[in-house]
Amino acid sequence: MKVSIIMGSTSDLNVMQAAMTTLEEFGIEYEKRVISAHRTPQFFSEYISKAEERGIGVVIAGAGGAAHLPGMAAAMTHLPVIGVPIQTQALGGMDSLLSIVQMPSGVPVATMAINGAKNAALYAVQIASLTEADVKEKLIEFRKKQAEKVLNATI
Amino acid sequence: MKVSIIMGSTSDLNVMQAAMTTLEEFGIEYEKRVISAHRTPQFFSEYISKAEERGIGVVIAGAGGAAHLPGMAAAMTHLPVIGVPIQTQALGGMDSLLSIVQMPSGVPVATMAINGAKNAALYAVQIASLTEADVKEKLIEFRKKQAEKVLNATI
Amino acid sequence: MKVSIIMGSTSDLNVMQAAMTTLEEFGIEYEKRVISAHRTPQFFSEYISKAEERGIGVVIAGAGGAAHLPGMAAAMTHLPVIGVPIQTQALGGMDSLLSIVQMPSGVPVATMAINGAKNAALYAVQIASLTEADVKEKLIEFRKKQAEKVLNATI
Amino acid sequence: MKVSIIMGSTSDLNVMQAAMTTLEEFGIEYEKRVISAHRTPQFFSEYISKAEERGIGVVIAGAGGAAHLPGMAAAMTHLPVIGVPIQTQALGGMDSLLSIVQMPSGVPVATMAINGAKNAALYAVQIASLTEADVKEKLIEFRKKQAEKVLNATI
Amino acid sequence: MKVSIIMGSTSDLNVMQAAMTTLEEFGIEYEKRVISAHRTPQFFSEYISKAEERGIGVVIAGAGGAAHLPGMAAAMTHLPVIGVPIQTQALGGMDSLLSIVQMPSGVPVATMAINGAKNAALYAVQIASLTEADVKEKLIEFRKKQAEKVLNATI
Amino acid sequence: MKVSIIMGSTSDLNVMQAAMTTLEEFGIEYEKRVISAHRTPQFFSEYISKAEERGIGVVIAGAGGAAHLPGMAAAMTHLPVIGVPIQTQALGGMDSLLSIVQMPSGVPVATMAINGAKNAALYAVQIASLTEADVKEKLIEFRKKQAEKVLNATI
Amino acid sequence: MKVSIIMGSTSDLNVMQAAMTTLEEFGIEYEKRVISAHRTPQFFSEYISKAEERGIGVVIAGAGGAAHLPGMAAAMTHLPVIGVPIQTQALGGMDSLLSIVQMPSGVPVATMAINGAKNAALYAVQIASLTEADVKEKLIEFRKKQAEKVLNATI
Amino acid sequence: MKVSIIMGSTSDLNVMQAAMTTLEEFGIEYEKRVISAHRTPQFFSEYISKAEERGIGVVIAGAGGAAHLPGMAAAMTHLPVIGVPIQTQALGGMDSLLSIVQMPSGVPVATMAINGAKNAALYAVQIASLTEADVKEKLIEFRKKQAEKVLNATI
Repeated sequence: MKVSIIMGSTSDLNVMQAAMTTLEEFGIEYEKRVISAHRTPQFFSEYISKAEERGIGVVIAGAGGAAHLPGMAAAMTHLPVIGVPIQTQALGGMDSLLSIVQMPSGVPVATMAINGAKNAALYAVQIASLTEADVKEKLIEFRKKQAEKVLNATI
Repeated sequence: MKVSIIMGSTSDLNVMQAAMTTLEEFGIEYEKRVISAHRTPQFFSEYISKAEERGIGVVIAGAGGAAHLPGMAAAMTHLPVIGVPIQTQALGGMDSLLSIVQMPSGVPVATMAINGAKNAALYAVQIASLTEADVKEKLIEFRKKQAEKVLNATI
Repeated sequence: MKVSIIMGSTSDLNVMQAAMTTLEEFGIEYEKRVISAHRTPQFFSEYISKAEERGIGVVIAGAGGAAHLPGMAAAMTHLPVIGVPIQTQALGGMDSLLSIVQMPSGVPVATMAINGAKNAALYAVQIASLTEADVKEKLIEFRKKQAEKVLNATI
Repeated sequence: MKVSIIMGSTSDLNVMQAAMTTLEEFGIEYEKRVISAHRTPQFFSEYISKAEERGIGVVIAGAGGAAHLPGMAAAMTHLPVIGVPIQTQALGGMDSLLSIVQMPSGVPVATMAINGAKNAALYAVQIASLTEADVKEKLIEFRKKQAEKVLNATI
Repeated sequence: MKVSIIMGSTSDLNVMQAAMTTLEEFGIEYEKRVISAHRTPQFFSEYISKAEERGIGVVIAGAGGAAHLPGMAAAMTHLPVIGVPIQTQALGGMDSLLSIVQMPSGVPVATMAINGAKNAALYAVQIASLTEADVKEKLIEFRKKQAEKVLNATI
Repeated sequence: MKVSIIMGSTSDLNVMQAAMTTLEEFGIEYEKRVISAHRTPQFFSEYISKAEERGIGVVIAGAGGAAHLPGMAAAMTHLPVIGVPIQTQALGGMDSLLSIVQMPSGVPVATMAINGAKNAALYAVQIASLTEADVKEKLIEFRKKQAEKVLNATI
Repeated sequence: MKVSIIMGSTSDLNVMQAAMTTLEEFGIEYEKRVISAHRTPQFFSEYISKAEERGIGVVIAGAGGAAHLPGMAAAMTHLPVIGVPIQTQALGGMDSLLSIVQMPSGVPVATMAINGAKNAALYAVQIASLTEADVKEKLIEFRKKQAEKVLNATI
Repeated sequence: MKVSIIMGSTSDLNVMQAAMTTLEEFGIEYEKRVISAHRTPQFFSEYISKAEERGIGVVIAGAGGAAHLPGMAAAMTHLPVIGVPIQTQALGGMDSLLSIVQMPSGVPVATMAINGAKNAALYAVQIASLTEADVKEKLIEFRKKQAEKVLNATI
């Protein structure tokens, strides 16, 4: 399963990089792209509609403010979409969060924490692990290491 | 100048009716339609892109929750778009408001108060009045009556 | 793929019923249970840990207030968990939403809108559709009907 | 069409400058002024009432906190007013936003995002483009370049 | 000392009545009026500017939503203004509260609780009691009775 | 009329200094004190109860977080109390604001903007100006200069 | 150990009754009283200061709005105080919650959920159970029954 | 009585250190540990369940974001749990606060202010002081010094 990572502007890369790094750790292929539901609606529409043809299984979309990217991606494909609300300067990301999570019936977006790009990747990994044994193995290993790190923390 | 009134679901009619009534009072023609950026993205895209060809000058879009309709309309046309955040049961419409008003640079939406459908129509009237003398006359008359109503209020 | 639907109290059934109805429409098997991370932590822990053994692929968890159920479920299994914040009387569900969505790095929960039980089921369907051709077919059909319903709406 | 840009204090210039720069890019004339509904109510009242006589078509008003400037401008003229909520130190601009957007029936203000001065100018451009062919041409060009910038972004 | 009670619309009377009843209990004269900073700016301006001439000492202003009435009254007179944020349907009155309390330096409004019309009157009484011995006596009596009522409450 | 300025901790001086400077500009005498309703309740109670005996006419109280100082001062005296919500690190001062403004019926606090210490002093000045002709004169002069400053601002 | 239950007004009894019922179930003695930090500050001060002499071990205080009762109780005694924020009509109890929980360093209040009177009693029970064997036994029994109720819930 | 201090990550130590320092000042023994309800659920469950056996009387748990640590600790033991919401970058700690305080009936958490680690320790001290005479003596002394510090503050 391949993942598509999209974001509304280059300034989101800062946050979204964590998704890429995490997918790489799990050996999951991904494409990445700055794309805008507002500024390039036609291209956006085509790009998402054809994601499945490109072998994409899950779309991760990061956006801030009146964050329409994840919801519009979910409208353009039946693939599962994971939304990452980007923190904003004025409202801390509450605007991004509500714009992504409060989707109407019929078109869900799996919303992560504000700036939760790493978790978006992990969720994609969890979906992949349902059918890919090697990913599942790595996921179980990741969880184990994560637990060990906590257990070994000294304060 | 003709106005296009769109809303995300039939349940929004309740609120959006006020926009229609107000436009009628000013003798301004309008089209109206339930349309969804999420559920009918292709049709939505065409409908808005061709609004100008249909003689539309201003688009009024009402939506609630993760309200993407006004913002996506603004992405699909260079006509001015007026957004009406619909009140929601859980969050009172704060979700609708932030999803509409916090648009990124380049694609503005003129946001009204929560449930402010009447004001959306009045704003369209104000835009029309810039170039249509009869509308301007009616607007000035409307303002005068509105003031009189306050002046004559007894408590 | 089977789905497990859990909720913190019988009073959540009101909202969570929509998830069951939707899964039934797609012919997806599910188990359902009132279970509490707070009141029955031991049983909860076992129940979720063994979900995979019972053939579960996705867990849908609905909870309100300091809603720990989805996050704790995500801690107990590597299966994807979908969280449904239940609307609350005092704060409208903002407490439920933040308690579910703001998960720390390492343990994601796919958060839906407040009271978004139907979308939780649809998201489970989308995950299933990645590998089950018949589910995918039904999903595409569902989307088409959903679009038609909007296109045929008259106001 | 000329635009009037007003703001409550010199400290708002920081944000409002973007409106001026944008209008200049489109070759649209504007006047600018620090003016206060609270501190100079009489002058304010006259200044706005006579805006139309000065050839103004649209008023852009930026204000923060209990931001009454846009709403009071809208009360003083039938010209369309565009409000820009300025970010505030304590509440991030939520106070500015609500003070501007929640206008009562009869006196609308077209509210932009917090600090959305550039979009305020673009909205004025959109209004102008309804009747000025050269502005419309520039607007379409602007949109195209904006899209290209996104399409060419590399990450 | 006489008090002027103003409100933005007849629908605010419901809440503002408590101010009148309380002033009557203290034998303080008052005038009352529906008046709108937005809909009748000219009349509003005159009415408030001349309040002192009419023997008014304190202005109580109730308003909801983008509540500019108290702040604009404070701009029009150097008399102390007391603001009462009226509860709103969508946002509970948070919009009214922030629009009234977050006044800029130079033009203060003494803000009461949401729907706190009775306290507005009591605050006017407290101001009057600084120089009117009989009002002070009544105020001390009122406080004593108020305390007794609590002390005698049985549950 | 003398003013009493109290604050909950020395760290509030930063904000409250503006009240002192402003009173000095108007030649109004004041006392100042760090005092705590929580840490020194007995002393606090005596200090406020005897304020009137010390010739105090108005109490200005600044406090942050669960800000009880202004409300408890209002409980201890029938003199008018003006509350200044101090900005807080975590919640921006929304906690301070609500703790001060939402007083129950019977015990009002005149609430200013977050960090609005200068306006608190100006409001005390406005109260004093009701009966002190020289203060009123200075207030009118202050307003005039304030207006001129705005009128002369260049951008 | 005896418990003192105080509340700001008779209207809070509705919510606070649950604390009494729960203490009765555990056979814990309690006193109850309407008392007001704002309206009866002197009596309040004495009543709380002497709580320990009356054999009280824990104080439960319920209050709404600018809820100072729990914090002022905590200021008047070194006994542990448990605060119950009462839901409010306008702001849902967010005001009550912040007024109680955001206490300054030195004077803690153990804050419960909005309307969480039952949990306040249970927390008092937990404190008592540290030194009273029979209370501890009942607490363990209560927890077991609570768990069973969840385990036996059918949906 | 011994205290157990737990926190979700080493980055919380910054805030939680104040709890340790305070307990040391009162000569109260404590254990401390990084532990995670999400990342190490099994170990967490055992660690808390056996706290009583280790002589622990009170658990202090600090956590941020979707802060489940205090609530899950309360689920695992009948000892009183004190929760410290850690300030978060995006939402200031409102997420942490609501995730901790809004616990369902049956499983209370005594919630402190955001970052209120010192108060958490003081509350544990207050509980201990109910049965340990020397702790009570120190607490009374602490309160006295705290009051003196305020009384001696000069500004």
